[in-house]
Amino acid sequence: MKNYDIKPYKKEFDYSYASGAYATIELLRFRPEAVRGVFVHSQYNDKAGIEALCRSHGVDCLYGDKYFSRVNQKENSYVLGVFEKFECSLETNRPHVVLVNPSDMGNLGTIIRTMAGFDLYDLAIISPAADIFNPKTIRASMGSAFCVRHKYFSSFDEYLNIYGSHEIFTFMLNGRNLLNAYGLPGSARYSLVFGNEATGLSECFASIGVSVKIPQTEMVDSLNLSIAAAVGMFMFAGKR
Amino acid sequence: MKNYDIKPYKKEFDYSYASGAYATIELLRFRPEAVRGVFVHSQYNDKAGIEALCRSHGVDCLYGDKYFSRVNQKENSYVLGVFEKFECSLETNRPHVVLVNPSDMGNLGTIIRTMAGFDLYDLAIISPAADIFNPKTIRASMGSAFCVRHKYFSSFDEYLNIYGSHEIFTFMLNGRNLLNAYGLPGSARYSLVFGNEATGLSECFASIGVSVKIPQTEMVDSLNLSIAAAVGMFMFAGKR
Repeated sequence: MKNYDIKPYKKEFDYSYASGAYATIELLRFRPEAVRGVFVHSQYNDKAGIEALCRSHGVDCLYGDKYFSRVNQKENSYVLGVFEKFECSLETNRPHVVLVNPSDMGNLGTIIRTMAGFDLYDLAIISPAADIFNPKTIRASMGSAFCVRHKYFSSFDEYLNIYGSHEIFTFMLNGRNLLNAYGLPGSARYSLVFGNEATGLSECFASIGVSVKIPQTEMVDSLNLSIAAAVGMFMFAGKR
Repeated sequence: MKNYDIKPYKKEFDYSYASGAYATIELLRFRPEAVRGVFVHSQYNDKAGIEALCRSHGVDCLYGDKYFSRVNQKENSYVLGVFEKFECSLETNRPHVVLVNPSDMGNLGTIIRTMAGFDLYDLAIISPAADIFNPKTIRASMGSAFCVRHKYFSSFDEYLNIYGSHEIFTFMLNGRNLLNAYGLPGSARYSLVFGNEATGLSECFASIGVSVKIPQTEMVDSLNLSIAAAVGMFMFAGKR
């Protein structure tokens, strides 16, 4: 990085980008130790602000418009935070969100943003799954990917082996319990489990924990994953 | 159209496309009279099914792979429903969703899909706003744009002049009432009003109807529009 090797993101990189001022400011706020440098476009209109913020964190603030055209694909962002990928551990005594094989980076990022909004900060992701460090995910999260803890697991069993004392709620189209404000857990140790966009949770999840159905009409096949997760999180987090 | 003039979509066209089998089937189900024709790609694996469905609606089912490359931009869809744009009127005795200047087609489509899931079928859109007939909106709606009624208004006042007897609920970050299951309207004549992605509802909406805040942490600037709308719709529709 010392030679500022800025290239279009690839999953195998050990670094990634926060694109846009908002996500970069969240990066500096929550993960300053991970920041390698911040690039600012000559057309950005609050250079003094971002420079001061970088200085306060001892982070290099660099100019170079050419870097932006290399990394930006569609969107126009004028600030780019380059950060080292980081590992997290999940808190044992807090509620978890568990996403089983989420495939869409926009959904993954939106769910992370919603988690932070609803006071949920621990996310388990069961592989194969979308890449949380892809700049598209980071952008959809509006930088919340820097304040929510995440961990990938190779299977749901691997997750259960570690967090088996959490009360498990599986969101399924044929769930046995309608989601409502009653019967929600009193303890903070619970896990809200959501399946893949196309397939949901497979039948074998029906025997794990409490299966929950979000009431919905027959006019739709299902709700969008990020919508279903938001409604579930809102109802559970609101209870607390 | 009789010469199958298939071109990349433009807003000024009097027709548009439902891209993908699912959205096309919804089009045939809810708006058969608007369908000009259905194109099927040679690689589509249920040709007999879609042919039978077209036949039952008296709709032409046509083959021609070249059309797909003209219309598809990123996604690969193997079925394309060509339809005439249509006008709707909103039901007076049903709840409405009102979107003020929504700018993102993905959000607009997702909100329409969520409406259909939560038994809400009347959508007022205040211009300027994203185009409901753009194939991206149709796709994000998963075809629910064909069962939800919509109407564009040039201002919120224009909407209010017609539907002033609806009880108005404005969703604002500084809303005076926290969203919860109590105090929701008993009548079906209510309108849930949501602002633009970047700016929300302007302060002048605070004096109109009942302002509602979705409880959220200070870790986020706001929730994604489609998420906020979904949580609001779920709570209101669930009461009924």
